[in-house]
Amino acid sequence: MTSYFRANVEAMDGYVPGEQPTDPAVIKLNTNENPYPPSPRVMEAIAQVTPDQLRRYPHPLGERFRRTAAEVFAVRPEQIICGNGMDDILNLVVRAFTGPEAALVYPVPTYSLYPCLAQIQEAVVREIPWGPNGALPLDALVEARGRLTILANPNAPTGIFTPVEQVAALADALDGVLCVDEAYVDFAESNCLELARTRPNVLVMRTLSKGYSLAGLRFGFAVGDERLIAGLMKIKDSYNVDAVAIVAAAAAVADQDYHRQIREKVIIERQRLTRALIGLGLPPLPSQSNFLFLQVSHPPAARVYESLKARGILVRYFNIEGIRDFLRITVGTPEQNDALIAALKELIG
Amino acid sequence: MTSYFRANVEAMDGYVPGEQPTDPAVIKLNTNENPYPPSPRVMEAIAQVTPDQLRRYPHPLGERFRRTAAEVFAVRPEQIICGNGMDDILNLVVRAFTGPEAALVYPVPTYSLYPCLAQIQEAVVREIPWGPNGALPLDALVEARGRLTILANPNAPTGIFTPVEQVAALADALDGVLCVDEAYVDFAESNCLELARTRPNVLVMRTLSKGYSLAGLRFGFAVGDERLIAGLMKIKDSYNVDAVAIVAAAAAVADQDYHRQIREKVIIERQRLTRALIGLGLPPLPSQSNFLFLQVSHPPAARVYESLKARGILVRYFNIEGIRDFLRITVGTPEQNDALIAALKELIG
Repeated sequence: MTSYFRANVEAMDGYVPGEQPTDPAVIKLNTNENPYPPSPRVMEAIAQVTPDQLRRYPHPLGERFRRTAAEVFAVRPEQIICGNGMDDILNLVVRAFTGPEAALVYPVPTYSLYPCLAQIQEAVVREIPWGPNGALPLDALVEARGRLTILANPNAPTGIFTPVEQVAALADALDGVLCVDEAYVDFAESNCLELARTRPNVLVMRTLSKGYSLAGLRFGFAVGDERLIAGLMKIKDSYNVDAVAIVAAAAAVADQDYHRQIREKVIIERQRLTRALIGLGLPPLPSQSNFLFLQVSHPPAARVYESLKARGILVRYFNIEGIRDFLRITVGTPEQNDALIAALKELIG
Repeated sequence: MTSYFRANVEAMDGYVPGEQPTDPAVIKLNTNENPYPPSPRVMEAIAQVTPDQLRRYPHPLGERFRRTAAEVFAVRPEQIICGNGMDDILNLVVRAFTGPEAALVYPVPTYSLYPCLAQIQEAVVREIPWGPNGALPLDALVEARGRLTILANPNAPTGIFTPVEQVAALADALDGVLCVDEAYVDFAESNCLELARTRPNVLVMRTLSKGYSLAGLRFGFAVGDERLIAGLMKIKDSYNVDAVAIVAAAAAVADQDYHRQIREKVIIERQRLTRALIGLGLPPLPSQSNFLFLQVSHPPAARVYESLKARGILVRYFNIEGIRDFLRITVGTPEQNDALIAALKELIG
């Protein structure tokens, strides 16, 4: 039987998300969830959802979230688009700006969803290797002439942060749109929001999955020039964020005090875990995210991944050219990190 | 300044959803929401969501919903894909099966989102007029050779139901995929699920927005051959349904007793409203949905829409070629329908 699917869809494997074990005893350091619970304000907001809010369509633009976030991030509501997770927004920008004759450009290695989205869209893809020590390959990115350039900052899976001045220089040198994927920026020392406020071609994309402990809620957003946002609104699903998510997400970003507390705890643990890994002879790359990326050669990374899994500790191994001898480890609670270090000591020592 | 957007996106207007007034006093008969609240089981399920369920990624396939729905609808979980509203699923099928050389075919008039999705995908579109009295234009649909044919059944905005035997004949005559958009089927006398169980090229799409009173939750799903479902899984967003929606949707479909009660109430009111409109000389088309579609010529439909709105009653007017002298009216509660009838009596009489 011939396939009913388009050839590009038939040919693709699809993005493979990290494992989601059902056993709550597993120490889950593989998908960069925040180890701390979301703000109590989020649970209160959800408890107040009425049957009528579920019965009716939600606000098509998620206005309550937009107004709250506009205040927190010092932009106008019209500069914000909400998404069903940041993946929804990534999907939108790939469809809005790229195609068979409109290239998608990004430095590699990076978030492996980008090429999947390009394949669905049949977009030209130009992958540019990062420079030495994760330096931004500015000239090569500009020469690649993307209609859309995506920069994950901090990058995944490396955790390396590209300084804002360099991102600004890239934005100004590009003819097309620059999307800065700030999924992990809540754990970094700076961010590119100011570029989204001042440049007509910069979109900054955020998620509540990591910094706000709401991976289960699926809520992301992008900030940019009103014309960019208005164009994306035309192609999003009419009601792409639900009534519960809107009020919960608004409550989360409104509670910046709590956000800063858990951010601080994760950063302190990241520093402690980094020192411990250095002590084991496994120095991670300099991370400004909530995960660490480290080379593991003896025993091979794939074997260490399996051995940790057998001990009930799940980390992320990518069977991808160029990073096959690396592991990506989410920063957990102090107890989880201690368990990881103890296990690694046995396996590596 | 030239646009950053692709030409097809720049050229489009985007789908315009029905108005969502903030004034709770408005009698809202314009977007086909169910007038009754969702099952109490839904509120209980939401109340039980834990901070940890929000903190972690949800199950990528919405397994809890799939298992529940598989039992209710007598299919295997592998035959079900969940979506962030049925719009998410429609979006997926247009991207999976259509393109510049792979036509999307549907009878018109119908749900005006289909051409919007085709425009984003730059897909060839072949619109086939319905036959006399809303009869299925079977031969013309087959001759249009769609890689994807969508049939809204009951159709919107007419409410007319195409008998299952005719849909089966269409499915068997087509080379491509047939998607039956059953958004309104909960109010019809039959449905096409059996075709999704037995045909390799039929997808039946459902939503919880109408029959389960959960428009605010954004939850839809499709049922079909496992190979079709597996292909769509490759291109959906990794975590396209959130943790709250999964448990709430599972609770809703599990409570079929409640579902049947509110379905029955809506159908009884539809029949009463139909008789009242006939009494006013405004006979609606024969509807098997939760709305009525009627020709209104004196005064013109647009004027009646405005006059009703001025009286706090919102109905749907489509400024679209061919249906400009029609109104689409959602079946409300008995009190809402009485208010509508009273207002129409004044305006038409």
